[in-house]
Amino acid sequence: MTHFVRNAWYVAAWSTEIDGELRRFTILGDHVVMFRKTDGTVSALEDRCPHRLLPLSRGKRIGDTVQCGYHGLTFDGTTGMCTRVPGQTNLPRSAYVTAYPIEERHGIVWIWMGDPEKADPSKVFDMPEFSDPDWAVHHGDALYLKSNYLNVAENLVDPAHVSFVHPTTLGNAASENVPVHVQTEGEAIVAWRWIRDAEPIGFFKGFGGFTGNVDRWHYYYLYTPCTAVIDFGSVETEKNCAEEDRNAGVRIFALHLITPVTETETIDRWLHIRNTALDDPQAETTMDAMFRKAFQEDKEILEAVQEEEDRPARRRPIRLAIDKGPLVYRKRINDLLELERTEDLASDPSPAFVYHD
Amino acid sequence: MTHFVRNAWYVAAWSTEIDGELRRFTILGDHVVMFRKTDGTVSALEDRCPHRLLPLSRGKRIGDTVQCGYHGLTFDGTTGMCTRVPGQTNLPRSAYVTAYPIEERHGIVWIWMGDPEKADPSKVFDMPEFSDPDWAVHHGDALYLKSNYLNVAENLVDPAHVSFVHPTTLGNAASENVPVHVQTEGEAIVAWRWIRDAEPIGFFKGFGGFTGNVDRWHYYYLYTPCTAVIDFGSVETEKNCAEEDRNAGVRIFALHLITPVTETETIDRWLHIRNTALDDPQAETTMDAMFRKAFQEDKEILEAVQEEEDRPARRRPIRLAIDKGPLVYRKRINDLLELERTEDLASDPSPAFVYHD
Amino acid sequence: MTHFVRNAWYVAAWSTEIDGELRRFTILGDHVVMFRKTDGTVSALEDRCPHRLLPLSRGKRIGDTVQCGYHGLTFDGTTGMCTRVPGQTNLPRSAYVTAYPIEERHGIVWIWMGDPEKADPSKVFDMPEFSDPDWAVHHGDALYLKSNYLNVAENLVDPAHVSFVHPTTLGNAASENVPVHVQTEGEAIVAWRWIRDAEPIGFFKGFGGFTGNVDRWHYYYLYTPCTAVIDFGSVETEKNCAEEDRNAGVRIFALHLITPVTETETIDRWLHIRNTALDDPQAETTMDAMFRKAFQEDKEILEAVQEEEDRPARRRPIRLAIDKGPLVYRKRINDLLELERTEDLASDPSPAFVYHD
Repeated sequence: MTHFVRNAWYVAAWSTEIDGELRRFTILGDHVVMFRKTDGTVSALEDRCPHRLLPLSRGKRIGDTVQCGYHGLTFDGTTGMCTRVPGQTNLPRSAYVTAYPIEERHGIVWIWMGDPEKADPSKVFDMPEFSDPDWAVHHGDALYLKSNYLNVAENLVDPAHVSFVHPTTLGNAASENVPVHVQTEGEAIVAWRWIRDAEPIGFFKGFGGFTGNVDRWHYYYLYTPCTAVIDFGSVETEKNCAEEDRNAGVRIFALHLITPVTETETIDRWLHIRNTALDDPQAETTMDAMFRKAFQEDKEILEAVQEEEDRPARRRPIRLAIDKGPLVYRKRINDLLELERTEDLASDPSPAFVYHD
Repeated sequence: MTHFVRNAWYVAAWSTEIDGELRRFTILGDHVVMFRKTDGTVSALEDRCPHRLLPLSRGKRIGDTVQCGYHGLTFDGTTGMCTRVPGQTNLPRSAYVTAYPIEERHGIVWIWMGDPEKADPSKVFDMPEFSDPDWAVHHGDALYLKSNYLNVAENLVDPAHVSFVHPTTLGNAASENVPVHVQTEGEAIVAWRWIRDAEPIGFFKGFGGFTGNVDRWHYYYLYTPCTAVIDFGSVETEKNCAEEDRNAGVRIFALHLITPVTETETIDRWLHIRNTALDDPQAETTMDAMFRKAFQEDKEILEAVQEEEDRPARRRPIRLAIDKGPLVYRKRINDLLELERTEDLASDPSPAFVYHD
Repeated sequence: MTHFVRNAWYVAAWSTEIDGELRRFTILGDHVVMFRKTDGTVSALEDRCPHRLLPLSRGKRIGDTVQCGYHGLTFDGTTGMCTRVPGQTNLPRSAYVTAYPIEERHGIVWIWMGDPEKADPSKVFDMPEFSDPDWAVHHGDALYLKSNYLNVAENLVDPAHVSFVHPTTLGNAASENVPVHVQTEGEAIVAWRWIRDAEPIGFFKGFGGFTGNVDRWHYYYLYTPCTAVIDFGSVETEKNCAEEDRNAGVRIFALHLITPVTETETIDRWLHIRNTALDDPQAETTMDAMFRKAFQEDKEILEAVQEEEDRPARRRPIRLAIDKGPLVYRKRINDLLELERTEDLASDPSPAFVYHD
């Protein structure tokens, strides 16, 4: 059994990764060929000819169609239907490839790998700061990890690891024993903590220019299945900042757009949105460098965890107080998987039969 | 279950690949050690000592015997029987390795991997042009492919791929929609087509010196399980050549001698026989270069197909009008496999019980 | 099913391999983290945090404890019990890692991977020559082999391979047909032979300086499961040496301390103890070089055997007169495995129920 929720929007690529060439991407274990059509929109097709299984990305783009490189079967880039079979005039009904719904916004290409009838563009993740002139958006990079996406996502709703994995970048010893709050807010799981009146962490020494003690916050929002927003920042302790006034400090949203590649591989495309140093490209470079260092620390941990998960286990892992966020996340994923596994008429979100308990 | 027909002659090697040294070959998934005995004939033994399983190719040739490199058990190069066990005087009956029947002709070493009692030398593939002074024979090369032999063989009775895989060498757009004829002729499956009054393909521009339009033929003969003969050529259109008069044109037999190595690896030893430029070594070099380019195109396709076949499938592949030859071929292989799988008295080619339907 | 006897002392490392750093070793398929505590003794813990499975060797040593690098759980280096869980004050009973019993002597670190209650330090292999001033001990090296430990151990109670695998180092043709004696002496299986009045082998030409004919002995002691002692030497034939007077010749004990790493990987740590050239470092260098060459010959054979064992078999391997030692060894291992597999009250070494046959 695979552990992928299919009925969801996933990030397929940065917009800059897709052009007129046929390019292969692997998403939820499936191969997808993508290219930009003549009208500029993105075509995303199953990357396997239904005849002799050659990847279509080995073939040739002809206008807005793709011609298979083995026997010339040709498929429409929008519908996936076969438009030509050399050697015969009829086009069999089963001569098609899956065409995946695509939404592109803010330089990000989202793909829907599940039931196309359920693909609702209004459900694509968005936040107002993307379009707000008081905020600056900066695309970071695509981090490839040899680890299951659940390990990667769970790490993003887990403030407790920061002191130990990122002691010189995103955390320090001051936070080791500060309790973590966790709650759900609609589709988001939120874990957060404030570390009050402490030395600034390495990141905010480098960015923000703090010298004295600060109040620092970390809010981890994880939207099921695969979008994480980390709202973190610092403000001088003497300002006595209220929790809801975080815009008064140096505030950064670090977004992690997680794409399950295979059961043991994940891509984490990350970007950040900030309220400080808006027109300062040097600030972006500095932040990128700090993030890269921190995410490399995560990568090493998460890949080592995956290796151990792949080995036989003698006993069940233990769970602790700090695992509240990850546990809620895994439960939500399991519920979604179960819903998709048994999908039938009753699994409709508005069932006719109402259960009273 | 493996998908190898065992009771058949396969090409083990070019004659030039075998000398006095012990050399390992892998054929139908089995390791075989081969060397040339003192009388010049080829010894082919199971490459695994029955004692502690060391490959005999790790041992030492002593005259026409092979001595295991671990404990010195020695095996006769002709019969495979053990002739010496150091430390004891009796030779146990089960101390032997399989000795495979071998036939060598026209510089090609054929091996029989099945029941030795069924090995009939008269069934080794041959054709009169090998020995006819009006024809020149030229050994090409051994192409290694990471693809199942069925994919490789099927590609050789599939004229429809030529326009798309070899657009600049063996085919061009003129043939894309020309129908393919398929029939069986005894043990051969034959697929063919004539492309009349068209521009010569790249191959016959380079070889044959055609400038005006030509009639071009491709006849694909596939002898079960693994020998393919492609009879192809061109003749000036104005000569109005009949189908049976192909010797009047520039005619080439391209032979593909296919050896299944493992379930996912195949060697295609190819050679060509021509009725033109008999004493022209430059012609051979030119042809080799063109073939190498074309076969590299096949290799890339067939290896990509294998990768996809190794992945889980959501739906059944489709079959088309152009697949007639491949379908007959796969059916024949399946019939042979079934015959070998259930081999018993009734599977004899002349059963006593006759079924009336 | 794994084929490891767990209730036994195995060599974990040379003493020199372990210092204050956290180091990972793989033994019987399990990962173990080892380091030297402040009192100089060796800590050996299961190398996997019971929380999110990160190897502890990725974490940090803090005094005599190990802190996990993911969430900071901390474990005692002696007991394996968790001493700290950041974010909570209670320490759950199941928060522990296995702590393995260790014995260190003669520069060798022994580990007990089985039931700790059965770990009896008096059962660690020892021999008086380790501490006898008339003998010199020299640690050799750690040879890594891609082969199951049974193949490696069995090779060490198998004098018959010497003539064929080591014809220029440890054996020569003179011994090919000399019979091998085998008997059991308590926990040891002993195989031996004397080659009388023959040319010295390469080893004793290089070490011992023999020029005329010698009597040469090889005694192979294999202590179940994984300790081999090879007592071999040479003495001038004219001295007419009795079997029990081997100290009169040049005598060497070559010890092989075999550690199963995984089902297909083994480490053979070897050392030698000699009664000749005690204070001659050049002798050690010469012996090391000769051993290295010979053990490389074994490695090539044993890895090739493993490759064949991993392939499907058509028929059962045969066993010969020379296999007496290996057969007794495999039977003993199988008996021990069966005892561990079904371990219950009745498997106690002093059962209340006595079987009369």
